[in-house]
Amino acid sequence: MPERQRDVLSELLQAVAERSRKLLRLPFGGEQELSAEALAEALLSTRGEASGVALARALLQRWNAMGEEERRAWFHHLARELGPERDELESAVAAWVAEPSPAHAGRLHRAAEPRRQELFRRMNLAPGGTATLVRMRAALLAELAGAPELAPVDADFERLFASWFNRGFLVMKRIDWSSPADILEKIIRYEAVHEIHGWADLKGRLQPADRRCFAFFHPQIPEEPLVFVEVALTRGMPAKIAPLIAADRQPIAEEEADTAVFYSISNTQDGLRGVSFGNFLIKQVVEELLREVPGLRHFVTLSPVPGFAAWLERQRGEDGERRLPPELFAALAEPGWHERPEQRDAVQPLLERAAAIYLLEAKARNGKPADPVARFHLNNGAALERIDFCGDVSEKGLRQSHGVMVNYLYDPAAIERNHEAYAHSGDVTASAQVRRMLALEEPGSLSRGLQALLPPRGSKAGAKKGAAR
Amino acid sequence: MPERQRDVLSELLQAVAERSRKLLRLPFGGEQELSAEALAEALLSTRGEASGVALARALLQRWNAMGEEERRAWFHHLARELGPERDELESAVAAWVAEPSPAHAGRLHRAAEPRRQELFRRMNLAPGGTATLVRMRAALLAELAGAPELAPVDADFERLFASWFNRGFLVMKRIDWSSPADILEKIIRYEAVHEIHGWADLKGRLQPADRRCFAFFHPQIPEEPLVFVEVALTRGMPAKIAPLIAADRQPIAEEEADTAVFYSISNTQDGLRGVSFGNFLIKQVVEELLREVPGLRHFVTLSPVPGFAAWLERQRGEDGERRLPPELFAALAEPGWHERPEQRDAVQPLLERAAAIYLLEAKARNGKPADPVARFHLNNGAALERIDFCGDVSEKGLRQSHGVMVNYLYDPAAIERNHEAYAHSGDVTASAQVRRMLALEEPGSLSRGLQALLPPRGSKAGAKKGAAR
Amino acid sequence: MPERQRDVLSELLQAVAERSRKLLRLPFGGEQELSAEALAEALLSTRGEASGVALARALLQRWNAMGEEERRAWFHHLARELGPERDELESAVAAWVAEPSPAHAGRLHRAAEPRRQELFRRMNLAPGGTATLVRMRAALLAELAGAPELAPVDADFERLFASWFNRGFLVMKRIDWSSPADILEKIIRYEAVHEIHGWADLKGRLQPADRRCFAFFHPQIPEEPLVFVEVALTRGMPAKIAPLIAADRQPIAEEEADTAVFYSISNTQDGLRGVSFGNFLIKQVVEELLREVPGLRHFVTLSPVPGFAAWLERQRGEDGERRLPPELFAALAEPGWHERPEQRDAVQPLLERAAAIYLLEAKARNGKPADPVARFHLNNGAALERIDFCGDVSEKGLRQSHGVMVNYLYDPAAIERNHEAYAHSGDVTASAQVRRMLALEEPGSLSRGLQALLPPRGSKAGAKKGAAR
Amino acid sequence: MPERQRDVLSELLQAVAERSRKLLRLPFGGEQELSAEALAEALLSTRGEASGVALARALLQRWNAMGEEERRAWFHHLARELGPERDELESAVAAWVAEPSPAHAGRLHRAAEPRRQELFRRMNLAPGGTATLVRMRAALLAELAGAPELAPVDADFERLFASWFNRGFLVMKRIDWSSPADILEKIIRYEAVHEIHGWADLKGRLQPADRRCFAFFHPQIPEEPLVFVEVALTRGMPAKIAPLIAADRQPIAEEEADTAVFYSISNTQDGLRGVSFGNFLIKQVVEELLREVPGLRHFVTLSPVPGFAAWLERQRGEDGERRLPPELFAALAEPGWHERPEQRDAVQPLLERAAAIYLLEAKARNGKPADPVARFHLNNGAALERIDFCGDVSEKGLRQSHGVMVNYLYDPAAIERNHEAYAHSGDVTASAQVRRMLALEEPGSLSRGLQALLPPRGSKAGAKKGAAR
Repeated sequence: MPERQRDVLSELLQAVAERSRKLLRLPFGGEQELSAEALAEALLSTRGEASGVALARALLQRWNAMGEEERRAWFHHLARELGPERDELESAVAAWVAEPSPAHAGRLHRAAEPRRQELFRRMNLAPGGTATLVRMRAALLAELAGAPELAPVDADFERLFASWFNRGFLVMKRIDWSSPADILEKIIRYEAVHEIHGWADLKGRLQPADRRCFAFFHPQIPEEPLVFVEVALTRGMPAKIAPLIAADRQPIAEEEADTAVFYSISNTQDGLRGVSFGNFLIKQVVEELLREVPGLRHFVTLSPVPGFAAWLERQRGEDGERRLPPELFAALAEPGWHERPEQRDAVQPLLERAAAIYLLEAKARNGKPADPVARFHLNNGAALERIDFCGDVSEKGLRQSHGVMVNYLYDPAAIERNHEAYAHSGDVTASAQVRRMLALEEPGSLSRGLQALLPPRGSKAGAKKGAAR
Repeated sequence: MPERQRDVLSELLQAVAERSRKLLRLPFGGEQELSAEALAEALLSTRGEASGVALARALLQRWNAMGEEERRAWFHHLARELGPERDELESAVAAWVAEPSPAHAGRLHRAAEPRRQELFRRMNLAPGGTATLVRMRAALLAELAGAPELAPVDADFERLFASWFNRGFLVMKRIDWSSPADILEKIIRYEAVHEIHGWADLKGRLQPADRRCFAFFHPQIPEEPLVFVEVALTRGMPAKIAPLIAADRQPIAEEEADTAVFYSISNTQDGLRGVSFGNFLIKQVVEELLREVPGLRHFVTLSPVPGFAAWLERQRGEDGERRLPPELFAALAEPGWHERPEQRDAVQPLLERAAAIYLLEAKARNGKPADPVARFHLNNGAALERIDFCGDVSEKGLRQSHGVMVNYLYDPAAIERNHEAYAHSGDVTASAQVRRMLALEEPGSLSRGLQALLPPRGSKAGAKKGAAR
Repeated sequence: MPERQRDVLSELLQAVAERSRKLLRLPFGGEQELSAEALAEALLSTRGEASGVALARALLQRWNAMGEEERRAWFHHLARELGPERDELESAVAAWVAEPSPAHAGRLHRAAEPRRQELFRRMNLAPGGTATLVRMRAALLAELAGAPELAPVDADFERLFASWFNRGFLVMKRIDWSSPADILEKIIRYEAVHEIHGWADLKGRLQPADRRCFAFFHPQIPEEPLVFVEVALTRGMPAKIAPLIAADRQPIAEEEADTAVFYSISNTQDGLRGVSFGNFLIKQVVEELLREVPGLRHFVTLSPVPGFAAWLERQRGEDGERRLPPELFAALAEPGWHERPEQRDAVQPLLERAAAIYLLEAKARNGKPADPVARFHLNNGAALERIDFCGDVSEKGLRQSHGVMVNYLYDPAAIERNHEAYAHSGDVTASAQVRRMLALEEPGSLSRGLQALLPPRGSKAGAKKGAAR
Repeated sequence: MPERQRDVLSELLQAVAERSRKLLRLPFGGEQELSAEALAEALLSTRGEASGVALARALLQRWNAMGEEERRAWFHHLARELGPERDELESAVAAWVAEPSPAHAGRLHRAAEPRRQELFRRMNLAPGGTATLVRMRAALLAELAGAPELAPVDADFERLFASWFNRGFLVMKRIDWSSPADILEKIIRYEAVHEIHGWADLKGRLQPADRRCFAFFHPQIPEEPLVFVEVALTRGMPAKIAPLIAADRQPIAEEEADTAVFYSISNTQDGLRGVSFGNFLIKQVVEELLREVPGLRHFVTLSPVPGFAAWLERQRGEDGERRLPPELFAALAEPGWHERPEQRDAVQPLLERAAAIYLLEAKARNGKPADPVARFHLNNGAALERIDFCGDVSEKGLRQSHGVMVNYLYDPAAIERNHEAYAHSGDVTASAQVRRMLALEEPGSLSRGLQALLPPRGSKAGAKKGAAR
């Protein structure tokens, strides 16, 4: 093609591209000059009915380009200016007070709805709206602690997302080594329980015949796994995490497995806080695995106990002391205790007992178990099956729970009963083995055994090492 | 395989199937014995949190199996028993009255929400939930006329569906001759404007190079087109429907077309009444066609005028009479008038004028144009471009509008302006040509010309023909 | 958009389209002026290496546009001018004769390959090449009878297609009511055994829970099912076709079925004659159904016997007469015989016997069974399970086989043994019941019984009716 | 679910699984005991017609499990025992000699076909057949050098694959960051030109807006890219590879690009040697990019010159010496010469001249250019546009070509002409600039300038450094 013709062609094509861009994207003009606040107002007005998609697109772009300061201003605008229409709300209240009929209740419900809810729905007209709104809430959550007056905005987001991300709209997909790389990259990034160290590590969790990973997706945000669970198929219920995720482990054949272990569950979207799907994911994965691997008989977790070490620390010197002897605290303060067999054996019964107390008796202010992971699984209807001493002796595992892990058991036949007991009376369903740990008869003799193994109190080594922590 | 072994295998397989069914579907038991009302209560309770999917599935099955009488009872139950929690609503009102803060407004909004809204969201947990809820509302709408007390339930459905069927969640797909037969079967069934007479007729509307069809789908109901539009690509703006859908017409090449004609738009789901997507569909189709067929310059409809004949009948003998001479009514009462050239020519100016009056001046009670199709397109920002005399001389076309059709023009550059004018002042944007029809100077002479063509009043022929209608 | 700008845009777009067409499709010029023969030569030359796709596209278009006369000339050109290179072949033969080494055998194989084989491979470079070549062979087959000199061209096509349509490249897909309409339209058109009467009839064969349809596709011709089989799931082995395809029949639940009946198998592409996939399709469908419907225990056909009536006619008056009494021929000549219970009962044993003789003993010239459907299933390893008297009393069924149908049994455990027996010794595996029919002890008494029911020989009615056939 | 019931269920399921495995996979028995040779014979026999899929599966498994020694034996078996049927070939030759008709030519072609060709086609009946056969040939190629008697087997593979991997059956797909990880892993592994250092490096070649990657796939081996090309969109024609693949480079917007640079093309399957698709891939990518990025005007490569350094070494002290002065060799022997500006400037004209001689004049034994990359692009119709001094100063680049790279130009309007010139007369189309390099008038003065920069001959440093290379 001669050079001159190429130039002409090139110009033609650029002119066309330009033209189409104008024609398709911004046929109505003027959005570029408006502030986000003015765009929001336009989107809520009659103009928004005609040009909703264009206005929504402009507003999303505007928001995406905002700096931190502008976003803060935007949130306060949402809180202050886009609440319910005051006059209509007053009238609706008056009407209800005069005659509390169903119709008046309905009017009250409508009148009390903040205008920002409709704004959010209209922002969703443009491509990418849902994902941007989820990120918007994530940004809002970061502001919330310092600005409680933004709480109603947050409540509106949560309400909206509970409707949009209803489990009926979510799609479960298997994540494996033939999944798109951009999705897998997010699995690496979002894994919140046991860090994934690069692509080789990831492959080890997805590719072998005895590994599974499942995630929920929303059709409108197909590039984002919302929550995912990693599963190991094992022979017997595992008590330690390290062998499960070791780079050089030997996979077993699918047919040899009798147990499915949920060893990591991660929510990925801060912006969806309070909209729970982990529960549904686990149950659907159980169904899926039953179909796929008919030899499975047990569905358990191998879970961290993230609040244990902090709670234990708070027991030191308290009334708890009676059941938790000072020798235990001293022993745990010795770095490397879990690597010295004698010390380790001596610590075990006392630490298991402490963990049992924590899991069965320690409560948060709302009367639910103190441990967040325990709350999640127990509320799902799982039972506390086993306490795993030295289940996770990684640096993180020792720091947050002195190495203790827990197996929660999902027994399809007991889920509903467990959940009801838990929900109504706060009862924690636990195996006999765990219950027995509570009832340890003579802690005194145990702690004396332990004491013998410790360096003398006040010895330099101990003090220094303790300080070093 | 020997017979005996086959038997054993068969038994094994049946046992397994049975077992899995129990295991997967109804692990918790007892749903089958509960009434729909009890299931709804269970679904809303803590039990619903643990066994939501199973309970929702049971409730959906129950509802699907209900007869008309049971469904009526179910709707009244929803209306009476599943409104807002009365006590909490009272307290929330009191709190707001005492201190009308944003937080109290939020509480009011929550407290005024009927419990059935949460019930609907939970019913959506089970597969097929969304589709069943849409059908449920369709059934409710059929009851509504005779039972106004059900209106709040309907309002809740509409509210919920406005959130779930937000345009951002809809997916536009082209419907063509390689679309799934079950979808196409629904296109045949749902076509509401110009009936499709079987598969050959359908193929004629989808397959030729100068035909298009697009529909919106919701990811959760992939088997149901929610709204669809049929498009003809033409050279020039067509004034008649028959040649456009004739079985033996000659298609033109895509490149010859300069006009896209939306000649049929059908909503398919009664249950989604009030949740509008036709507007968005038309605009997205315009974008799509601009990309695909760069030669297109005009986007118009060829639309029916469904309310015209009825309106005209009401003008007879009224004050309207001055502008609508009795000769017109007499002429239109003659069957076959449109097939007699002289009579037809005489009717034309008067009927066009009447149509212009109807479309530009006749109003519904809310001040909007009387014609529903006009309301739809004008509200979308289209303009009234041309009145097509004898555009549809089918039996249906003559009956509802004496054959008159209308071209509405979607000019991307004018849509917003048109919509705003319409929304704020009720102004109907119309072409100069249409406006001129209103200003007809001397209707008298026209009607005299027409009168000369009519059979003498009371003549046998006229009477007979009239009777024949 | 103002009119003027639209014009400019339109011109721009047309210019661009024009430009790209030239650029992308025909960068090298001149193809349009060349004859098909010259294009073929160019495609085989070095020019073809550089511009193969463009030349192949031009040649395909040229061929598609040819009339019958031109196509005939094209085929003769292929036969005469595009055989092996004569000189090279002579040399290769000489080399082999001098030294019959593996290398010389290889050279012989290459040298004997007609140039048209390479031409066909290069024509396949352009989109749609495979489908066009298949149609080309179909057109060739229509010429072949009158022009045996084209046989080598046909042999080359068959050879090529055997390689390209190797079963390993075919994909089995289920055809159901959600399949694309253009595929379904072809199922209607191609059904060769029991005609499908429009879309409603088709739906009845695809949609019910007790019906299946599977087809093989080639990835390069995704719009064409190459062969398809229709399956009915039944309780017990059916003996009649009519109830199986009746419009108003009652489907049974999948779980109730114990038998899968292949009641229609159709090859769709004349151009693929001699490239057999029906065998593989049936076996893969058996595997698929075993997975999907675990209750199935029997896999059978309900097949026509297309050559039976013609064969029987040829037995009249021959030596066969001894076993096939003249009364049978007379009875069958009576229209409506199958509707008269007595006559029908009398015909049954004699006709069954005749059918058994035909299926077990009548041979084609190559020593294989005379009946083509029997050859197909027996060669696949099926066994002759049952002869179904009055299995198909449609006009076609009576005409081709006096209503007789056959169930062939596909028993996975016996397929290989049956096939080997058949392939090596021509043995037809048949059930004891069928074998017994051959051994009918006293045909004489049967035929006498029949004779009593017939009108007297030479009676007018009989003669007339016979003549009417 | 009580433990006992679980046991029962588990046993049931295992029994069923076992049963189905037998039923579906190995219904005919005995394959496991057969040798590969016996399986091959069975597959070619009538038994193969009935049980082809099962036998093919068994044979593939057998081959996959073979050690090196067994595979060698297998190849020799193919060569010795599975050639053409000797008797039939003799007869066919005799028939042809007696009467060289088209029919006898056809018979000759068929008779000369080795039986292993049919064996390969039948092995393809089982899932995974194609991929295994490609690997089988790769293994064969590794044997070939030491065993020329296997060449006919290799020729048969090549012949078969030329038919199966015809360009018409290949599908071009874009490879990007949302491609499946298992595919991407192979891109990393197979990249043969500029090594990809892990996933981050790969992302840098796929994800940015100014990068593209395309591959050909065969539908039957969807998990294997057969050939892929990496493309950079640039402003102007690049002369150096390093900035193009630098980890920290700044991408440009797609609209800024005027040039598409093919900077790496890799064939991935040894087993497909001789079956060329790179040519087609490049041309289809040109078409694709023209559509996608209308601003592009130039399509070039940035290519290595892999044979240059070795060729240059062979010129030392030869007749070539006159044009390639000894100072050049001495200078290139100095490590780091390209990092010292003066030396570098002095080397440039001499090295460019040497490269021009190599590319334009050096020939392989078959008269084609000596450089394999040059042969590939010139045969595709590209022109030698520019020699890039110091285009690749990586260790590998210096080693194989003293840093020289080349831009080949794909000008759609010239491709056919270039290819014809090249194919018929071996003419290399080169730009005027490259041609001028050949005609360097006074190399003497240049080399004197260079000499002044070199360390004195025999100096220690030089000698040592030279030796160190």
